[in-house]
Amino acid sequence: MKFLVEKEKIFNGIKLVANVAAMKSLQPVLANILIETTEDKSLRLTATDFDLTISTIVEAQIEDEGKITLPAKKLNDIVSRLADKLITFELNSETNSVNIKCENAKFDIKGISASEFPNVLDVNLLAENAIDIEMKPFIKAIRQASFAAANFETNNLLSGVVCDINENTLEMASTDGNRLARVREKIENIEKKSSQLIIPSKTTNEFLKMSTLINDKSIKIYTDRTKLILKTENSMMISRIMEGQYPKYNQLIPTENPKTAIVNRNKLISALELVSIMVNEKTSIVKFDFSENNLVLRGDTPDSGASEETLNIDYKGEDMTIAFNYKYVIDGLKNMEENEVKIEMNTNLSPTVFRPNSEEDYISLIMPVQMR
Amino acid sequence: MKFLVEKEKIFNGIKLVANVAAMKSLQPVLANILIETTEDKSLRLTATDFDLTISTIVEAQIEDEGKITLPAKKLNDIVSRLADKLITFELNSETNSVNIKCENAKFDIKGISASEFPNVLDVNLLAENAIDIEMKPFIKAIRQASFAAANFETNNLLSGVVCDINENTLEMASTDGNRLARVREKIENIEKKSSQLIIPSKTTNEFLKMSTLINDKSIKIYTDRTKLILKTENSMMISRIMEGQYPKYNQLIPTENPKTAIVNRNKLISALELVSIMVNEKTSIVKFDFSENNLVLRGDTPDSGASEETLNIDYKGEDMTIAFNYKYVIDGLKNMEENEVKIEMNTNLSPTVFRPNSEEDYISLIMPVQMR
Repeated sequence: MKFLVEKEKIFNGIKLVANVAAMKSLQPVLANILIETTEDKSLRLTATDFDLTISTIVEAQIEDEGKITLPAKKLNDIVSRLADKLITFELNSETNSVNIKCENAKFDIKGISASEFPNVLDVNLLAENAIDIEMKPFIKAIRQASFAAANFETNNLLSGVVCDINENTLEMASTDGNRLARVREKIENIEKKSSQLIIPSKTTNEFLKMSTLINDKSIKIYTDRTKLILKTENSMMISRIMEGQYPKYNQLIPTENPKTAIVNRNKLISALELVSIMVNEKTSIVKFDFSENNLVLRGDTPDSGASEETLNIDYKGEDMTIAFNYKYVIDGLKNMEENEVKIEMNTNLSPTVFRPNSEEDYISLIMPVQMR
Repeated sequence: MKFLVEKEKIFNGIKLVANVAAMKSLQPVLANILIETTEDKSLRLTATDFDLTISTIVEAQIEDEGKITLPAKKLNDIVSRLADKLITFELNSETNSVNIKCENAKFDIKGISASEFPNVLDVNLLAENAIDIEMKPFIKAIRQASFAAANFETNNLLSGVVCDINENTLEMASTDGNRLARVREKIENIEKKSSQLIIPSKTTNEFLKMSTLINDKSIKIYTDRTKLILKTENSMMISRIMEGQYPKYNQLIPTENPKTAIVNRNKLISALELVSIMVNEKTSIVKFDFSENNLVLRGDTPDSGASEETLNIDYKGEDMTIAFNYKYVIDGLKNMEENEVKIEMNTNLSPTVFRPNSEEDYISLIMPVQMR
């Protein structure tokens, strides 16, 4: 194998796939990136940890066909430091080592034979199973809906993000039992097909990283019983999907909460961060005291002291005190774009809805904490 | 105690002293900052870990005199997040807690009585022991000479930085046995006094941090047998000094090395960083191959492969191969300001001098590594 490639192009490809290369696997080859020439004379990079596979095509001048796997971390370190010029890669098939040349720099890097790399790209891309959707709303929905997923690395469905694609809408949601995020986006679903699936949150997180490195306007979603395939023009992500019945979360969202406050979103985030300096680190509780056009946030700790900040808000309801884990509130607020947030409350034990004060269909629902 | 202070002024004061507040001490009061009003109606902040004490005066409107200690970390967190306005501090002497107010924010922070804070500021500032020197060359000398000190937290003298102040020169140096840094600066030593002392490298490191927060043009140095006191107009650092006979390092510096190479400093740093991707992590050895106007740097590892980069340099001597711990070379180069570095060599086992190719009197001496 021998090829020439522009530094920026292969560096971008390496960044796309390198995250999933498993550094601590029992199989050393999983810490490597599979580099192979394709039938149409370009280069494909692939990395996998079995649960998740990312593959991308890189434009290159192929002089000799072939394939090899190279350690992801070393390859990334080398390419990142090379000059912004054409790089030559040449495989010595006898030693499995690759000679890399760029300007006055030369490297010999030892690889592992491509035959040891698992056959993860062998998937069926059946056109009749494909859903074609716009990239921008898909990325936004994943970003806004993923953070509330439970944080355990098990097969528990609550560690997944549920994704419902209908004719005109994309709905994504996650919940860990204490809070819930749900977003609904209008999409142009060209194929008019629908699908519901539960995506591991590791996959959604990696997809968000990947999305910063690609420019495609749309993405194709393929599914079968066990796999989700996200495909853009040059890149592909293959993930396992989670099987089972996700909780009927839409039933948990109150349709009418009688008390409504409108608050400046950035001021509320800053005030929470300030007050949180004096909260019990185990419980993270901040008390919200609502009175006419006034919100007082209070923190206190057994040992260090107490904190308080007052905000002018738009509120006409009865006086009310309600407490939340402030981290959940901040997580939800930081995923909104609108300047103003609407807080919809019922009692101080009922699920409370934080949403942008606009037409945007995004909800961060948080269970209050019982106060003693 | 009650005082009003501008946020920026007290925040700067807290940043100056907070670093030395010992977070993991057996004495909780050492994690606190002593805050006290002074006789001339300003505010003094002090923190100490016994070895090192930093104290600074902050301009404030004092309404009631008094003193208290407050936890450095919490105080820093609070003040950093408050608005850029006037802050009011008011002590409740019965509870030892301080009420902090700024705009709509309020804090109650629990302190420890000032009577528990050690009496570290009780030092003799005898004018006849003072040396008055310019700040700029003093900071530069400390920065350039400190990095080569040995890295063990013992009383070993090699973990200190030796400082020699004569009538017209300031000489500072450190060595860990494998390398040495020495800088000589011309100074205007107003008092014409001389002094040699060994400063713990922890003190020089803290002084470098402190120097970014103060604007004084000169600094007074006071010493007695056990203490070094560095004093600017508003701030003061008190450090223990190390006792003993520092090795006669000037004897180790070769006066004449016959082979001289002139190399672009930034290109050499970049090349070393590139080649170092493929070096044995335990030994960090990079080989330097000098031939006419040419320098080839080589790294290799038992498992991952090898690296090589070629630089055009100015060299007329015999061909020569010499090996160094590349980290030592980079440390020295990064502390120079000149574009070109002069490398002065003798044999591939003799101490090698890296110095700016200018009149600047700065030396980074490195012992080569024996090659097999």
